[in-house]
Amino acid sequence: MQRRKIPLKLIELSEALSLGERSFSSTRFEEEISVELAMNRILAEELRFPRDFPSSDISFYDGFALRSEDTFNASPSSPVILRIVKEITSAGECVLIGGGSPVPQGADAVLRLEEATIDGDKLIVKKPIPKGEGIVRRGSDGRGGEIAIPSGRILRAQDLVLVMELGRSRLRVLRRPIIGIAAVGSDLISRKAQGISYPDSYSFLPFFLLSSYGFEPHHIGIFPDDAEKLANSISSLSSFYDAIILVGGASVGEDDPCHDALLKAGRIIFHGIKVSPGKVSGMGIVGGKPVFLVPAHIGSAMASLLLIVIPLLSSAFYGTKDPYLKLRAKLMRGVEGRPGVLTFRTARVEYRGEYVAEPISKEYGGSLFLTSITRANGFFLIEPGRKLNEGEVIELKLFSPPEALSIPLMEKSKEEA
Amino acid sequence: MQRRKIPLKLIELSEALSLGERSFSSTRFEEEISVELAMNRILAEELRFPRDFPSSDISFYDGFALRSEDTFNASPSSPVILRIVKEITSAGECVLIGGGSPVPQGADAVLRLEEATIDGDKLIVKKPIPKGEGIVRRGSDGRGGEIAIPSGRILRAQDLVLVMELGRSRLRVLRRPIIGIAAVGSDLISRKAQGISYPDSYSFLPFFLLSSYGFEPHHIGIFPDDAEKLANSISSLSSFYDAIILVGGASVGEDDPCHDALLKAGRIIFHGIKVSPGKVSGMGIVGGKPVFLVPAHIGSAMASLLLIVIPLLSSAFYGTKDPYLKLRAKLMRGVEGRPGVLTFRTARVEYRGEYVAEPISKEYGGSLFLTSITRANGFFLIEPGRKLNEGEVIELKLFSPPEALSIPLMEKSKEEA
Repeated sequence: MQRRKIPLKLIELSEALSLGERSFSSTRFEEEISVELAMNRILAEELRFPRDFPSSDISFYDGFALRSEDTFNASPSSPVILRIVKEITSAGECVLIGGGSPVPQGADAVLRLEEATIDGDKLIVKKPIPKGEGIVRRGSDGRGGEIAIPSGRILRAQDLVLVMELGRSRLRVLRRPIIGIAAVGSDLISRKAQGISYPDSYSFLPFFLLSSYGFEPHHIGIFPDDAEKLANSISSLSSFYDAIILVGGASVGEDDPCHDALLKAGRIIFHGIKVSPGKVSGMGIVGGKPVFLVPAHIGSAMASLLLIVIPLLSSAFYGTKDPYLKLRAKLMRGVEGRPGVLTFRTARVEYRGEYVAEPISKEYGGSLFLTSITRANGFFLIEPGRKLNEGEVIELKLFSPPEALSIPLMEKSKEEA
Repeated sequence: MQRRKIPLKLIELSEALSLGERSFSSTRFEEEISVELAMNRILAEELRFPRDFPSSDISFYDGFALRSEDTFNASPSSPVILRIVKEITSAGECVLIGGGSPVPQGADAVLRLEEATIDGDKLIVKKPIPKGEGIVRRGSDGRGGEIAIPSGRILRAQDLVLVMELGRSRLRVLRRPIIGIAAVGSDLISRKAQGISYPDSYSFLPFFLLSSYGFEPHHIGIFPDDAEKLANSISSLSSFYDAIILVGGASVGEDDPCHDALLKAGRIIFHGIKVSPGKVSGMGIVGGKPVFLVPAHIGSAMASLLLIVIPLLSSAFYGTKDPYLKLRAKLMRGVEGRPGVLTFRTARVEYRGEYVAEPISKEYGGSLFLTSITRANGFFLIEPGRKLNEGEVIELKLFSPPEALSIPLMEKSKEEA
């Protein structure tokens, strides 16, 4: 630990985001993949019905295809008798067909099998069957040329079945941006050498978190505290990755190499934001690619990722600055924002007849505490110096979509309540 | 298409579920995997803190570790001067330390660097620093022996970072049950021979859907309409899979082999439920493993999977009968249940200041229509003959968790609204 050699120039979060957004442009890459691998991928083409679906009139159910006019005078007391045949060639005939089968030539209505009375090769019809009954018209599901699935759709199970029905076995989807992640710190290298498996554990927070937001994270390893070497490394890595995240070394003590490495390899967009925790978050551009500086305290890292990295990457690659699942919840405890900065707070939201949010904190805000993150499922921001009272309703964002699985996100079902 | 040779014995959905639940027991298999592959997996062991976290008192921020009592009389007008040293050996000394570093011997408070006035090797203290200020106590994050992550947790990004910090690089998780899925139908085999890539597209509905519910689906292929061969196939497959799903051939026409195959290879638990669509859904047990019969119309298949297959598998393997994300929504249009059966209806739920549900239907309920499923994101049930009015609030379940990504599940944020 040594004194800071450069004072951080802190800027507002909103300014950081707007500078960040203007500093690089994403390339929209597509790839063609098998439909079997396309679950949850984003469709990058417009899929149209190649022909009418269904391609002819079909029967909605198992039953007898018949001529409606033959049954006009049918009644329970005076039934109409139709001959069951293979092909309708004249009045008074009907054909047994299965649900989903084309309606045979000559027929214009279908009597449901369950409602039919059969006597040998005769069908006894006891009521008039209106024209069109039981028939699904050609093109009801989609007309040839109509859009079946619009571009941009997050592909779900049923969409992929439709893709297969459209005759496609491969389709164009957006390539997942590849994000290179590294830890920075000579101390981490020595701890690794001592046999500790994951001294760089905090750098795995973006590794895991980004996979929930449509990105493909690669973990590169640990870089030593050497600005020159780091500058060379990120320069060459910038041609392989859509973005780079450096975890640690983002402070501006003498040993912290990230600031200088960014200056050597490219340029700094901002370094230092008026947010606590997360103050030393930064961003630069190297070889046209964004390089994010994420602090190595767990709470600061979470704040930096959720407030800076994910919004900027999501905006550039997926067109949304705010990809979070949100809900409004009642605060179970009053909390106060620090003066002069936006305060990032974690909370555990639960459903107890209404959504309630328990702010998670220990002494000193908990930015050092893993359990302040593992006990929480979402976060909220407090304006500088603002006091939020117990019972106040706040907007809370979930850390990532899978968090929704571990809480009854919406109201409990009657069975469970 | 031919007449039914066996009448289906229809039972209530609740009875089918309770028969199904009692008919087999799952084996809880665990596997040990790398922490790097464990995202969203279910933890199958209890993880405890191996020691106190942190293992000593640490400083919450960059600053000067000092003896609180030295500062008791400090004030702006009469500041106390402390000597900045490397090690505190006597009164009147302080040590510069970094956030997260152990508090050095002799010190019992930390003055934040930003609040410090420094003059060469002197620290000028203008107010009393209370004992304990700036110090995070040993064990604040977790005491040695305390539970860090309980068994059963769906592992999220932050949990996995904690796993790494606990010193673990591998961990025990529940093995994903492997579900064998096949289409049944000789006609599908001929269509495949004609060069159609996915004539068995509907059998991919469970393939994709089950992957969202923690299962590992394998697609086996297409079986012909031959009860004898099918019985042999499912007998041998039952030793490889945790469950088998047969899509199609579940009706009881002469060509439909599933009913007979189940009788030959094992036993039938139920076949036929009072639900529309989805009536011919069934279930048997072969070699101790459940075999589900799912109809091959898209709407019926969806109903069968969501009402029978997923609840029974989820109950057996994950202990929950109702794994669906739920919400209460206002019906945008009145709908009516069919007499004598539960009606399965799909709907598109959206947030328009409140949740609203638009029932998706075309003429004849749409169970033949792919677009009645692709335009929807959830489902609801209507009691036999019950009429639900426009404006009525119903409980709706989402098809699968990823559906939540395509709608603003909770309220829109202020920025977006």
